[in-house]
Amino acid sequence: MNISKRVNAMQFSPIRKFNPMAIEAEKNGKKIYHLNIGQPDVETPECFMEAIRNFDEKVIAYAESGGRPELISAVIDYYKKYDIELEPSNMIVTNGGSEALSMAFLSLLNDGDEVLIPEPYYTNYSTFALMAGGIVKPIPADASKGYAYADRENIEACITPKTRVICCLEPGNPTGNVLTLEEMKVICEIAEKHDLAIIADEVYREFVYDGRTPVSFGQLSEYADRVIIVDSVSKRFSACGARIGLLISKNKEFMSGCMKIAQGRLCVSTVDQIGSAALFRLPDSYYEEAKAIYCGRRDAVVEELRKIPGMNVVVPAGAFYLTCALPVEDIEDFLTFLLTEFEDNGESVMFAPAAGFYATPGKGKNEIRIAYVLKEEDMRRGVELIRLGLEAYNKKLGK
Amino acid sequence: MNISKRVNAMQFSPIRKFNPMAIEAEKNGKKIYHLNIGQPDVETPECFMEAIRNFDEKVIAYAESGGRPELISAVIDYYKKYDIELEPSNMIVTNGGSEALSMAFLSLLNDGDEVLIPEPYYTNYSTFALMAGGIVKPIPADASKGYAYADRENIEACITPKTRVICCLEPGNPTGNVLTLEEMKVICEIAEKHDLAIIADEVYREFVYDGRTPVSFGQLSEYADRVIIVDSVSKRFSACGARIGLLISKNKEFMSGCMKIAQGRLCVSTVDQIGSAALFRLPDSYYEEAKAIYCGRRDAVVEELRKIPGMNVVVPAGAFYLTCALPVEDIEDFLTFLLTEFEDNGESVMFAPAAGFYATPGKGKNEIRIAYVLKEEDMRRGVELIRLGLEAYNKKLGK
Repeated sequence: MNISKRVNAMQFSPIRKFNPMAIEAEKNGKKIYHLNIGQPDVETPECFMEAIRNFDEKVIAYAESGGRPELISAVIDYYKKYDIELEPSNMIVTNGGSEALSMAFLSLLNDGDEVLIPEPYYTNYSTFALMAGGIVKPIPADASKGYAYADRENIEACITPKTRVICCLEPGNPTGNVLTLEEMKVICEIAEKHDLAIIADEVYREFVYDGRTPVSFGQLSEYADRVIIVDSVSKRFSACGARIGLLISKNKEFMSGCMKIAQGRLCVSTVDQIGSAALFRLPDSYYEEAKAIYCGRRDAVVEELRKIPGMNVVVPAGAFYLTCALPVEDIEDFLTFLLTEFEDNGESVMFAPAAGFYATPGKGKNEIRIAYVLKEEDMRRGVELIRLGLEAYNKKLGK
Repeated sequence: MNISKRVNAMQFSPIRKFNPMAIEAEKNGKKIYHLNIGQPDVETPECFMEAIRNFDEKVIAYAESGGRPELISAVIDYYKKYDIELEPSNMIVTNGGSEALSMAFLSLLNDGDEVLIPEPYYTNYSTFALMAGGIVKPIPADASKGYAYADRENIEACITPKTRVICCLEPGNPTGNVLTLEEMKVICEIAEKHDLAIIADEVYREFVYDGRTPVSFGQLSEYADRVIIVDSVSKRFSACGARIGLLISKNKEFMSGCMKIAQGRLCVSTVDQIGSAALFRLPDSYYEEAKAIYCGRRDAVVEELRKIPGMNVVVPAGAFYLTCALPVEDIEDFLTFLLTEFEDNGESVMFAPAAGFYATPGKGKNEIRIAYVLKEEDMRRGVELIRLGLEAYNKKLGK
């Protein structure tokens, strides 16, 4: 009884090995500011639980494999705001954005096929690609260029005869990079030229700052046949535990393939769909308020980071993550120091070492990802603790 | 942009092509008795929605990838009734039994590996095996022998160097076959001899009739290292729309592989886990009542079927399905007749053609599967409509 090659090739969450240290520190009474996970402390809008509490069907029955009608209709109305006209057959409700991604990869990849993803990228893409027998090939996106990557030459240099998909998480995790509609068009043109599918993971769509207007690959209707949108309620509505995602495409053959998988796993949680239908009916003011909260947190993080000598901070344009290099050689060693040795008034801090977001060996060794998902004052204190920790760490190293 | 070979090899639900006929008939005012799907009309125990209504966390946050502690602890207590001692690390809460099956296949199969499954079998196993690059090889289980299959020679004749897994759905869908603990032991011995894993899909565990005691592969502790139990709240608690399943095994390497996939998809619905924890705490009387309901329905179906001349009914020992041959040559033609031409007092009936549950071409062409999930009087009327339909069909064919 052996474990399959594909699962052997998968990685555990890169933060996993630091969790026991954090748990140990917390057990010993140290307060840890968790800047390491994308779990916002923002309350889920009340309408989610309200809709569920009012749900009164006596039998919690299978939902339709493609999704319950009230949720589909709410999603169709939501997308109208972006001038994207959808029909029920254009979407499948999934177990979070995660299942939408794995369905898309399973439908598009044969063994050994390649998926292009700008690097650094959300680690779990590799797991989903491996599940489908595929391989992630990174598109380089250097911090020195503000993590921009949507350059024709830069992308085309990565395309091989095995490339099938370009996958863009926009706004991005872990860099907070945001594409303009013009940049999206460039990517569509490349996809058209090389006959690639585009997986546009737009779960942070509304979280763009500094006066930017949210955009979607779905708005480029001339490329609709090769665009696949992945969406989710998790981040947009601070409802990460409601496992409701969406797989959206106007490509009939693709959707038909995905529907076979959807029928196989029967359906998605009935009550989560009921609650999520209410979330998609929230007024525009909800998005403005949520955006203001995250933008305030971002600004606080940037301001505090800039107090660290020698820091070069790329201000993220969207999502709720920031990736930056710290003036240390080995981030993992520094994080271990923060969790096991350092404290300031009984407090310390945890972030995600960014190396876990790189597929290219050796990259990201001095970078960290901060998720700005906690209250502004907590974010400030968290970054302050990084700064104080750095001072103590350098002193320890005799620098 | 092409669809992957694996998804091309998958089938749509075999009942799919008859759904439009049923919808059309219902639109025209005909009442259709749906004996075709395993969606019980039994009410979900109140405690499910009650627990959810009382859930008052303000942020619907990610659950642990392996499952929320209150559900895991309820499941551990439930299994104690079977003398199966579990630890939290022995289980992963999944999106229904479906995800548990696909995780298990992904962790155990390499491309071209074979999974043995007694035939006829639950169609979606093929989808899950194909997702993992595997192939289902049927173990023959003839109606003439009451669909029994747990015979050493019968099983060993199917084993090849590519066989990795024996998959047993017990009690079974679509036949209602139930293994004794002795038969389970024979299967374990075969698995041990040929180094195979056993996937024991026991979602109908308590639904065994005629004085049988529910049993589990988990009780054969000497084989624990190769037994993987798939479980779910769907059928046991008539909560099909609560997508809560379980993957259970004491094999550490296997569980560690599955945990990588579980971390990739982050977690399972928080509110469904809250509700399901309450379901697993239901008293023993719940199981007795549910069993009595389904047993009554089974007896009604058998009694009505025996009124059809020339019928040979294998009385199912468990689950809530019955598979039998009808005295017609082409079941699909007969079902089309029932939905489009036949009616009795404005009513007709739908069942699942059993051919869809066979991987072997040509098998099951004159067999049907009945799900006895409706009220007793509805089940009686449904089977009566099959009998009256048969008379009308034979008259039409000039027999």
